[in-house]
Amino acid sequence: MRMTKTIFYHAGCPVCVSAEQDILKIIDRTLIDVEVVHLGEQSQRINEAERVGVKSVPALVLNGHVLHINYGAGISDLKK
Amino acid sequence: MRMTKTIFYHAGCPVCVSAEQDILKIIDRTLIDVEVVHLGEQSQRINEAERVGVKSVPALVLNGHVLHINYGAGISDLKK
Repeated sequence: MRMTKTIFYHAGCPVCVSAEQDILKIIDRTLIDVEVVHLGEQSQRINEAERVGVKSVPALVLNGHVLHINYGAGISDLKK
Repeated sequence: MRMTKTIFYHAGCPVCVSAEQDILKIIDRTLIDVEVVHLGEQSQRINEAERVGVKSVPALVLNGHVLHINYGAGISDLKK
């Protein structure tokens, strides 16, 4: 069975860390491959996140859908 | 291994349905028991949702943490 690729974008904020722990705990890692991207440290990927529709972090992207989970920071705040 | 109980609260809105499909797709159902509660149809459970901290739907509650996923409707809107 093909793994579904998901990307969890965050910025290291407390809301992000908490959401990451919860999400990684419930995801079926045998079916779902999760890449964790820290946009504070990998700012060159902010544009990629915006292109797929990420408006705030933390966010989980799967199959082109964006799940914005709680609200840690707006993506525009990460560019400052 | 004990199943972790989670509750997905929604109100039948398009944002809710889309989030529900995504979440149920990625959750490890062998470890995580998900109860789906439609607050539009089960309005007697709105108070329970509020007590655990649900501010908007869709939301996933696990271990006392609330993951607000995208934004379909505010919980106060469901009381009208």
